[in-house]
Amino acid sequence: MHEFSLIELLTKTIGAQTGAMEGVGDDAAILPIPINHQLVVSTDTLVEGVHFNFGQAPETVGYKAMAASISDLAAMGASPAWFFLALTLPSMKPEWVEKFASGVGEVAQKAPIKLVGGDVTSGPMNMTLTVCGLVEPGKALLRSGAKPGDIVGISGPVGLAGRALSDQRRGVKPAPACISALYRPELRLGFGQALVGLASSCIDISDGLLADVSHISAASNVGIQLDLETLPCPPELSDLPDDDRWDLQLGSGDDYELCFTAAPERWRDIEKAATKNGVKPAQIGKVIQGSGCQSIRPDGSVFNPGRSGYVHGVHS
Amino acid sequence: MHEFSLIELLTKTIGAQTGAMEGVGDDAAILPIPINHQLVVSTDTLVEGVHFNFGQAPETVGYKAMAASISDLAAMGASPAWFFLALTLPSMKPEWVEKFASGVGEVAQKAPIKLVGGDVTSGPMNMTLTVCGLVEPGKALLRSGAKPGDIVGISGPVGLAGRALSDQRRGVKPAPACISALYRPELRLGFGQALVGLASSCIDISDGLLADVSHISAASNVGIQLDLETLPCPPELSDLPDDDRWDLQLGSGDDYELCFTAAPERWRDIEKAATKNGVKPAQIGKVIQGSGCQSIRPDGSVFNPGRSGYVHGVHS
Repeated sequence: MHEFSLIELLTKTIGAQTGAMEGVGDDAAILPIPINHQLVVSTDTLVEGVHFNFGQAPETVGYKAMAASISDLAAMGASPAWFFLALTLPSMKPEWVEKFASGVGEVAQKAPIKLVGGDVTSGPMNMTLTVCGLVEPGKALLRSGAKPGDIVGISGPVGLAGRALSDQRRGVKPAPACISALYRPELRLGFGQALVGLASSCIDISDGLLADVSHISAASNVGIQLDLETLPCPPELSDLPDDDRWDLQLGSGDDYELCFTAAPERWRDIEKAATKNGVKPAQIGKVIQGSGCQSIRPDGSVFNPGRSGYVHGVHS
Repeated sequence: MHEFSLIELLTKTIGAQTGAMEGVGDDAAILPIPINHQLVVSTDTLVEGVHFNFGQAPETVGYKAMAASISDLAAMGASPAWFFLALTLPSMKPEWVEKFASGVGEVAQKAPIKLVGGDVTSGPMNMTLTVCGLVEPGKALLRSGAKPGDIVGISGPVGLAGRALSDQRRGVKPAPACISALYRPELRLGFGQALVGLASSCIDISDGLLADVSHISAASNVGIQLDLETLPCPPELSDLPDDDRWDLQLGSGDDYELCFTAAPERWRDIEKAATKNGVKPAQIGKVIQGSGCQSIRPDGSVFNPGRSGYVHGVHS
């Protein structure tokens, strides 16, 4: 199939035709940034065989790719606005592209976010999604604002996507909630935006809770202590011995919940914002002076996870 | 080499450390758009074996990739501001990355344009460059503004890059000017910006003069007539019979000169702007009512090029 027909198929399926703006199909897209806003931009590349594979349903590949990209906007407290899709395909298969695009489009309509440009080329399967969101100047949630005394919170349970992967590897059918977490992660956009002015830092849990908390700790020059007793245990993980569960919950990513820090007196407002957005957050630790991250068992002993961060997707 | 070290090497080599802004290394980059400006964004993917190959010097690959992306901003009349680099590499070779980055950085410093984000992943070689530029609202040069009666101009001679490729395929050493056009195309940023308010439409010649002129014709709903007599013949192409030369000049791309249309009374101002920017433009045709593009020989006969548009890079 010719490149131009593929682009037409993509834009039609994703729905860019509704309200496409000046400049689409030109040398570049023109983005009219509203007055008193900054643009927040994130770029992510996904490679076949690393982040997804051809055995997966193309709708699922599209949905997950888009949800993971949007998650970066949620973690900044930004409202989604526009996105660009650069797609490299080994053979121009319209069926695959159409189903993939329908998955991308489903998330794009939920967000909502508008396709405004991209590129389609021939070669080994690869895709780069560039998402653009809007924030008021100085309001974006960074990784660098955590302060000693802050509490650490998460927007929902972690480890479900990791459990789905681990079940699949063992040939066990994962629970529906785990499958959903892995392939159709919830968008935390509303809650992320509600955290603006309440949270001191924020990140989305894509690499694994401990790895992502470490990013906050390093960017903020603080230490972080996670209290494992307070880490929510979803029913789908309750069959695991505690150490195995914590290992999974700290080391696996892909849930795309938000992890944030905030002054303790903000917690009540955060809970209100969470309820409005259908989110059940939990306090799971505290920010301390110093550096690095520690996880503490209920008996006070330090837990050292066996995993050192989670490798995405089809890697085992 | 680890992903994070590679990112450090890239950012260091490209020079993003100078004046890196808030949000770099966060979930997303934050772009503070100045008041009364629109953002112009273009995304291009280059694939190894299609657009470049490992036999080429990595500096050249980086230089050309970046110059080609920047060219889209020039064609919109935008001033370059920020860019994102998403790089997929089969094996994390720091030598290749450093040389590639130095080529990218050379163009980035000339433009100038600042690296503010990206992604590095492992997989078959692929890169996506996303460049962002600024324009005043409504001032961007589109493909869609050409009007019957306008003249068609180009910012410089075309066909040199195509000649380099054709020589290489025949085992002949290309002339230095042809090699430069192919691997180190000039940035037409200053001239592109100067065309704002003067040109009625603009495009960069990446696919081939005829293909790109056809994009203007289609987007503007006009016909375009090219007068081959007026198409500048650079000395490096003067050995070719006319029909062969026109074939090359109309069908080959990669020179990244600008092709534009303008009301005839603007020509004097365009020439002044060109002189200021070290550019020698030529009038090569006119916009007419109707549709489609025709090339007319000096004897009045229609020339039908044998090529139907140029396929980039290592394809033959």
